[in-house]
Amino acid sequence: MDVTPYSCMTRSQLEREYQTVQAAYKQCQEKKWNLNMSRGKPSKAQLDMVSGLLTQLQKPEDCMDGGVDTRNYGELAGLPSARAYWADMLDCKPSQIFVGGVASLNLMFDVVSRAYTHGLADSPRPWCREEKVKFLCPAPGYDRHFFIGESFGAEMIPIPMTPTGPDMDLVEEYVKDPQVKLIWNVPKYSNPDGIIYSEETVRRFANLKPAAPDFAIMWDNAYCVHQFQGEYVPFPDILSLCAEAGRPNMVYEFASTSKITFSGGGISCLASSESNIRYFTKLFGIQMISNDKVNQLRHVRYLQNKAHTLEIMKGHAAIMAPKFQVVSEYLNREIAPLGIAHWNDPKGGYFVSLYAMPGTAKRVWELCRDAGITMTEAGATYPYGKDPQDSNLRIAPSLPPVAELEQAMEVLCVCLKLAALEKLLNN
Amino acid sequence: MDVTPYSCMTRSQLEREYQTVQAAYKQCQEKKWNLNMSRGKPSKAQLDMVSGLLTQLQKPEDCMDGGVDTRNYGELAGLPSARAYWADMLDCKPSQIFVGGVASLNLMFDVVSRAYTHGLADSPRPWCREEKVKFLCPAPGYDRHFFIGESFGAEMIPIPMTPTGPDMDLVEEYVKDPQVKLIWNVPKYSNPDGIIYSEETVRRFANLKPAAPDFAIMWDNAYCVHQFQGEYVPFPDILSLCAEAGRPNMVYEFASTSKITFSGGGISCLASSESNIRYFTKLFGIQMISNDKVNQLRHVRYLQNKAHTLEIMKGHAAIMAPKFQVVSEYLNREIAPLGIAHWNDPKGGYFVSLYAMPGTAKRVWELCRDAGITMTEAGATYPYGKDPQDSNLRIAPSLPPVAELEQAMEVLCVCLKLAALEKLLNN
Repeated sequence: MDVTPYSCMTRSQLEREYQTVQAAYKQCQEKKWNLNMSRGKPSKAQLDMVSGLLTQLQKPEDCMDGGVDTRNYGELAGLPSARAYWADMLDCKPSQIFVGGVASLNLMFDVVSRAYTHGLADSPRPWCREEKVKFLCPAPGYDRHFFIGESFGAEMIPIPMTPTGPDMDLVEEYVKDPQVKLIWNVPKYSNPDGIIYSEETVRRFANLKPAAPDFAIMWDNAYCVHQFQGEYVPFPDILSLCAEAGRPNMVYEFASTSKITFSGGGISCLASSESNIRYFTKLFGIQMISNDKVNQLRHVRYLQNKAHTLEIMKGHAAIMAPKFQVVSEYLNREIAPLGIAHWNDPKGGYFVSLYAMPGTAKRVWELCRDAGITMTEAGATYPYGKDPQDSNLRIAPSLPPVAELEQAMEVLCVCLKLAALEKLLNN
Repeated sequence: MDVTPYSCMTRSQLEREYQTVQAAYKQCQEKKWNLNMSRGKPSKAQLDMVSGLLTQLQKPEDCMDGGVDTRNYGELAGLPSARAYWADMLDCKPSQIFVGGVASLNLMFDVVSRAYTHGLADSPRPWCREEKVKFLCPAPGYDRHFFIGESFGAEMIPIPMTPTGPDMDLVEEYVKDPQVKLIWNVPKYSNPDGIIYSEETVRRFANLKPAAPDFAIMWDNAYCVHQFQGEYVPFPDILSLCAEAGRPNMVYEFASTSKITFSGGGISCLASSESNIRYFTKLFGIQMISNDKVNQLRHVRYLQNKAHTLEIMKGHAAIMAPKFQVVSEYLNREIAPLGIAHWNDPKGGYFVSLYAMPGTAKRVWELCRDAGITMTEAGATYPYGKDPQDSNLRIAPSLPPVAELEQAMEVLCVCLKLAALEKLLNN
């Protein structure tokens, strides 16, 4: 096996390698795969594992939670026991929690949407009355965060990611601009890099002194308990840090059970200062009477508390870990010796962030598509879908069974090589 | 028993009556009631009746709907079987349905909110960029509709209700104003009057020629199958009528299972033209991945179709009808002979609309409150909470058991008399 890095090959060696890899790619195409590594979806095995959720409430009396009949109207901010559950999960107080429906994304959207139409608690005016609004976007990041900013016409400014979180020097500089109103974060097992923000990064966030009085730190703690390798990693509570730093209203934290129980039928929460929760509960009172309290109680009964949730997460880890190992093995064996890509090695979250040879990510994505492998679109991890390096690809290994994942990774590795060779030979 | 109408009494007769009624009111107060006739909440008996919903999905394989795993992400516009269910309920096509979460109110809010931030499909610009936006508000109407308009700062114009629906001459006149962008409706068993819009009213709605190209008919069909007396009443399909009249995008219809299964854990839908559903599905795709599909399937399995849902509604009717009879009996016996109030006699929906002697509704509400009876606040059924006649009170008899309802109605009747006498004696 040829293990010369591509950068050390002569042109004729590259040409020979190109013939070999192209032949391998044609073989891949002939297999007519239809495999999907595009979205962070839990696998059937994970969903089956939490079937206990389905049978928690069977009779009318099961639906009573203390004095509250979950089946009827009321309890806008959430069932008290569900607020207590999320408070336990996120190390805050129940009065700092608003319980949402199936998706925390909807709560994030609603915070931004209400900022535009009504303003946040400390806004001088609704954002739709501002001349210009700018969102900071640590990148690579989560495409759905960026879609929200794009949908509202915010100017999105990419912030490079470092191994300890976003480049905080840049963030501290940008927030001096009063038009900068918001920053997106996935602070633990970041999407897609799998980075855990360092304690220093979190402290610098809490101590930001933005020019905009209504600057919002969006803290999407989607993977707060989602380690698949090693023990639960304690993480600083941004809410109390912001309060200590004198700006308790600056942060909006989000979490959900989408990757704990069912992605298609979970519960979510917004956590923030008590004053923000009061402000938003009033606003949410215009649009709803409460979110689904029956499902809230089903979750409280099944998940119980943080300790028991961490036990359930061990089951998910046992299913997830081998899949990340497959990704890692293929890349280490097939790609590492060639020096044409690098990638992260996450211990939690749902993604492997792969940096293909600059200028080849879109081509890798096309080659994969034409060989029956669906990947998250190249560029999707950057605002406006524009990766300046055309390098980052997000691998989502959770959904396919291990055998399928191996086949998909084999194709991906061939595509990474082929795109790199095309690039090198055309330069 | 004195059955002289108050208007025919001499001053001294009124004074004697006042002494008697005041003594009765004091007796009511001494009983220290804590009774609630304020909101249209189903009773425990109704919620217990539909417990079959809880056990529809027990095992992983129960959660599969054809090829769709309801537990996972996907199917933004709703589970195909849930779209088909709502299409059957509302006499339209599944492609005209977007399935929502627990509350249709949230879908209504989202339509208005997105009209403000993004515009509707036919909007020249988002409503937040319009100099002024006006909403037509048939009144008395549903307070939560009016709260949405108020929250977004729309100018709300009350439209008087007639026994066949809103005054359509006025509606047709007002929509010539391009600033008039929307009208609220509860077309069947209207809240609170219990009126079913006549076929002519519905046709006049469908044939409106508003100056605003993005004028929206909000058609909150909350009580589409909610008869409690007599058989199901067929009702014209506004969607196809608007399409026939050449403005398919003008109407947004809403429905939910809040008063079919669980108010705190049902499903809802938006029904509109296929083009509006495509437009909103794209917008909703920014804020969510899907609503709760597990609960959608639970509902489809339990409710099955319109025919079976109508069977279930007979069970609700059997619980509801005696309560409306209590209201009717008390008012007919205690109040009718005195000529101090009139009221409707609905055959479906959740409310009795009571018109107290003009200028006394607020006082009746206070007297009820001070005797331990919670009523919907007087004025709430009008935009900005301002009933120009200070007359309308909304009675919601569904929640309390019959025995409690009798006590509450006894108190209400005393309060109606006392407020009328105070008014007559002070004039």
